[in-house]
Amino acid sequence: MFFNDYGPYTRENDLAELVSPSKKIHFVKLRHGGELHTHRGILKFDDLISIPWGSQVFSHQDSPFILLQPTLGDLLHETPRNTQIMYAKDIGFILITMGIGPGIRVVEAGTGSGSLTTALAWSVGEKGKVISYENRQEMQILARKNLNRLGVADRVELKLRDIGDGFDETDIDALFLDVPNAYDYIPQVRAALKMGGYFGCILPTTTQVSLLLTSLRRYDFGFVDVCEIILRYYKPSPDRLRPTDRMIAHTGYLIFARPIVLLEKDLPSTRRAPGAGVVVANEILSRHTDNVSEDENT
Amino acid sequence: MFFNDYGPYTRENDLAELVSPSKKIHFVKLRHGGELHTHRGILKFDDLISIPWGSQVFSHQDSPFILLQPTLGDLLHETPRNTQIMYAKDIGFILITMGIGPGIRVVEAGTGSGSLTTALAWSVGEKGKVISYENRQEMQILARKNLNRLGVADRVELKLRDIGDGFDETDIDALFLDVPNAYDYIPQVRAALKMGGYFGCILPTTTQVSLLLTSLRRYDFGFVDVCEIILRYYKPSPDRLRPTDRMIAHTGYLIFARPIVLLEKDLPSTRRAPGAGVVVANEILSRHTDNVSEDENT
Amino acid sequence: MFFNDYGPYTRENDLAELVSPSKKIHFVKLRHGGELHTHRGILKFDDLISIPWGSQVFSHQDSPFILLQPTLGDLLHETPRNTQIMYAKDIGFILITMGIGPGIRVVEAGTGSGSLTTALAWSVGEKGKVISYENRQEMQILARKNLNRLGVADRVELKLRDIGDGFDETDIDALFLDVPNAYDYIPQVRAALKMGGYFGCILPTTTQVSLLLTSLRRYDFGFVDVCEIILRYYKPSPDRLRPTDRMIAHTGYLIFARPIVLLEKDLPSTRRAPGAGVVVANEILSRHTDNVSEDENT
Amino acid sequence: MFFNDYGPYTRENDLAELVSPSKKIHFVKLRHGGELHTHRGILKFDDLISIPWGSQVFSHQDSPFILLQPTLGDLLHETPRNTQIMYAKDIGFILITMGIGPGIRVVEAGTGSGSLTTALAWSVGEKGKVISYENRQEMQILARKNLNRLGVADRVELKLRDIGDGFDETDIDALFLDVPNAYDYIPQVRAALKMGGYFGCILPTTTQVSLLLTSLRRYDFGFVDVCEIILRYYKPSPDRLRPTDRMIAHTGYLIFARPIVLLEKDLPSTRRAPGAGVVVANEILSRHTDNVSEDENT
Repeated sequence: MFFNDYGPYTRENDLAELVSPSKKIHFVKLRHGGELHTHRGILKFDDLISIPWGSQVFSHQDSPFILLQPTLGDLLHETPRNTQIMYAKDIGFILITMGIGPGIRVVEAGTGSGSLTTALAWSVGEKGKVISYENRQEMQILARKNLNRLGVADRVELKLRDIGDGFDETDIDALFLDVPNAYDYIPQVRAALKMGGYFGCILPTTTQVSLLLTSLRRYDFGFVDVCEIILRYYKPSPDRLRPTDRMIAHTGYLIFARPIVLLEKDLPSTRRAPGAGVVVANEILSRHTDNVSEDENT
Repeated sequence: MFFNDYGPYTRENDLAELVSPSKKIHFVKLRHGGELHTHRGILKFDDLISIPWGSQVFSHQDSPFILLQPTLGDLLHETPRNTQIMYAKDIGFILITMGIGPGIRVVEAGTGSGSLTTALAWSVGEKGKVISYENRQEMQILARKNLNRLGVADRVELKLRDIGDGFDETDIDALFLDVPNAYDYIPQVRAALKMGGYFGCILPTTTQVSLLLTSLRRYDFGFVDVCEIILRYYKPSPDRLRPTDRMIAHTGYLIFARPIVLLEKDLPSTRRAPGAGVVVANEILSRHTDNVSEDENT
Repeated sequence: MFFNDYGPYTRENDLAELVSPSKKIHFVKLRHGGELHTHRGILKFDDLISIPWGSQVFSHQDSPFILLQPTLGDLLHETPRNTQIMYAKDIGFILITMGIGPGIRVVEAGTGSGSLTTALAWSVGEKGKVISYENRQEMQILARKNLNRLGVADRVELKLRDIGDGFDETDIDALFLDVPNAYDYIPQVRAALKMGGYFGCILPTTTQVSLLLTSLRRYDFGFVDVCEIILRYYKPSPDRLRPTDRMIAHTGYLIFARPIVLLEKDLPSTRRAPGAGVVVANEILSRHTDNVSEDENT
Repeated sequence: MFFNDYGPYTRENDLAELVSPSKKIHFVKLRHGGELHTHRGILKFDDLISIPWGSQVFSHQDSPFILLQPTLGDLLHETPRNTQIMYAKDIGFILITMGIGPGIRVVEAGTGSGSLTTALAWSVGEKGKVISYENRQEMQILARKNLNRLGVADRVELKLRDIGDGFDETDIDALFLDVPNAYDYIPQVRAALKMGGYFGCILPTTTQVSLLLTSLRRYDFGFVDVCEIILRYYKPSPDRLRPTDRMIAHTGYLIFARPIVLLEKDLPSTRRAPGAGVVVANEILSRHTDNVSEDENT
């Protein structure tokens, strides 16, 4: 398993990262007899096995490469950039917030190219389980290929299914949606999650966020949080420390919520009308907005 | 173990989170016969065992509380606010970037109150190991208490030691420093890390970052990244979606680097002077600054 | 006029700023015989006239105050904090973007407490003119008082009017709306602005911004920009430079647009359907979104 | 004067902005007989005079352009991008904070290509004055050309001088430095500014900011503020409102300060040592850091 065989030396079948002089990244599996062909020359894997990680190695044209053991961050970082991709900054916060770690069982939809699936599989460890739904067969095939390459396919169950038909699972600890119309599936999410479980979602536009918030209210979710995470790199010069000139301005808004049931006995009598409980769930229980109700009246 | 015994119902000895109507958080261990005393009344733990997570429960004064299974994010979030605390936004990015997941062996200094230690212990799982150094005995005692409470003490080795004397470990995969003068310990870090391993650090001021960057250059670290992560919450109102009025502006700068050794054969002849390799390591291999060398001349 | 009588010494009737040891700000008009009473003692204005600006002066209890000539920024900064207030960061960008400077004629609605009105009046100078609409008489009275105090009332024409009834002015260079339902008045704005003139608006929520964008499309505005300005302060310690711990996260979204008329002759034949011009105006002419049309298809 | 002749119709000698279908900007002076040659065809200025601003006009190849009266923001926005350029977001905040408006006399160094000079000249109006120092003759020539083109040269006095030799002016209201080693000229700044006047500066790196803060302390400046302004654009789609994908991450840090003199009588006896007053000036009087002194002890 690519991120488990830790140690100072490369071994056969390890996943390795080769960084070229121009910082181009190549991920390879170190099979005996294998080769990496680049426009800077050929690297023979036989020369790269049983040597220290972090070594500088040379192509047959004498171009220097750095040989690294990739971390999850490296893999996410180097995935071809497109708007579908999830970023380390967002994934890290999602894992911590939703409590997705060793031994957990987590449901995800859609699978997409599998970048979040990979992160989830890595995070839940050997005893955990990721169940990932996708309704486009070609995406599922691509994701399966990626998961196999990284050696985590056995922790993941890929399902080809429209989640409009519901999830098979119930009493799930955590469920993450990465689909544009997430707001259409909140009843299905509610049916799959255990009470107090964690729902998470990423959406690019404010319009989608508003629709999702409406749906979460309707289906009695509480502890609703909306946030965005901004990652800003600096030029690492000790004498001229400053942010880079340009940065990624936006990946998506993160939304979290937990299904709860409020009994009516605690409601003020004026609000015990049917449905009032929902409003209470959101107004009282959003963690980061002491003044939402105040804001409601503005 | 608090984050492993997943399931829809509370069980004896589970760690639980009780949220009051005013959103005050109480973490309790659900022991038979136990009680939580609040100014809104008493909650008896016997009533809270073997019921669904996410339930609304009532104190003897009829005040409603929500009963939740805490995630790592909940625990970090509710820790008493002080400048020493590490935030979920930073920890999540650190774990992903440095590849700290199930099965890894990671070294940390200083232990402090143990919030990062807890996150590391949670993340490495049962097969992983966290070795955490601290030179203040009272902090170590506090951290040990916190780790015991959360049931992860067996994954953590606490060492009472000044890291100026070096780390016992070698060929470590990942090492994180959370000490103000991190720049003073880079030789020790270099000795402990395996080649190509991951060094990480958090520092509050730009002055400290500059000093650390100088030290990382001197000791042949490459792939140096400096960044900050900004978390911005929104008011979760579907009709009035907007950021909260105020936010946390700064927790710390994150610095990452990997020890490498560059051979001189790839250097242009004009730069093969002693020490030139260090410059190359940083200039060429910083991932997020295509134009550092350009900047150097400004 | 408070910001015109520049010079090194205070003069009678100057507007002055007194900063207490605990940084409390007092704005006073330096009239002979006047006094400022604070809980740190009394300051007699006779002692404060004809002395250097920037002096340290003392109350009868010997408490030290700093005597400053206030700038527009000082005045905005110290206005009692409420959500209605406009901030220097936003006002500065508005003035520059919309070209509001000496000699211009600008229309504003609503007047509110007059903080933006003050800034506009200051900026247009003696030859310029600000026309400000407000439909709440008590707000207009408050604003008039503020403008009189600052000596810029003669540059401002206050109108008590519901702008739903339209503006009196036509061929206006620049028009700014600071009303929650700005999207309801776009036809009136269009009638008042000259072609190619500048419309600006500030709105706190994304929902309002979306409604305004829809209205701007309907009424043939082009060069539509939406942005937000984030101001982050640092602790000014040379050895411990770092951002402050907390900051203001949000004041409002700024929206700018210019009325234009597109002839149909330049449209591709497939898009010459009625109304197509509007789409073109926005898609082609938004300055900061090279890929809006691409986004439209996502 | 380019930004003074307001009105609905273009006039001879007006500065105009022509926006091509691909959003390329051309600034032209509308002289009779003049022409703009573009790869989309020729525009004759005779056709562009005495027509409404905001019109769509066509090249001889029938390519549509929009004819706009440029604002200061337009001019700044379209200036060729380079690191020397000052941005509207920063300039706007500088003008407001430092009180640079109609009638003021302001000193600037260095002139550079004159973008800030232009903004200052625009802002001070006909009765104000800008004195701008530069020690590179070729830059001064370029700046003069730009100022002439925009018709504001008569408000600006350009001086070819190394400011290390000091400024000619004294009792200046406001002085802005845009030079990399601003910290070397603080005595000269102090000599030129009136007491309580406003000093401002922009610097790209944290290292420079720290050096400047040290120098400001040494020369008894108070009310020291350090900040940065971040401008984030959104895609102006009503149904898909979201930030743009990428943004400018950094232009520079803004530093403001005011020269004051503290008498010793208010110092605690323990701090009346020579130089102690400087510390007091900064610690007590920084507006945005209630806890600087606390931070000093961390």
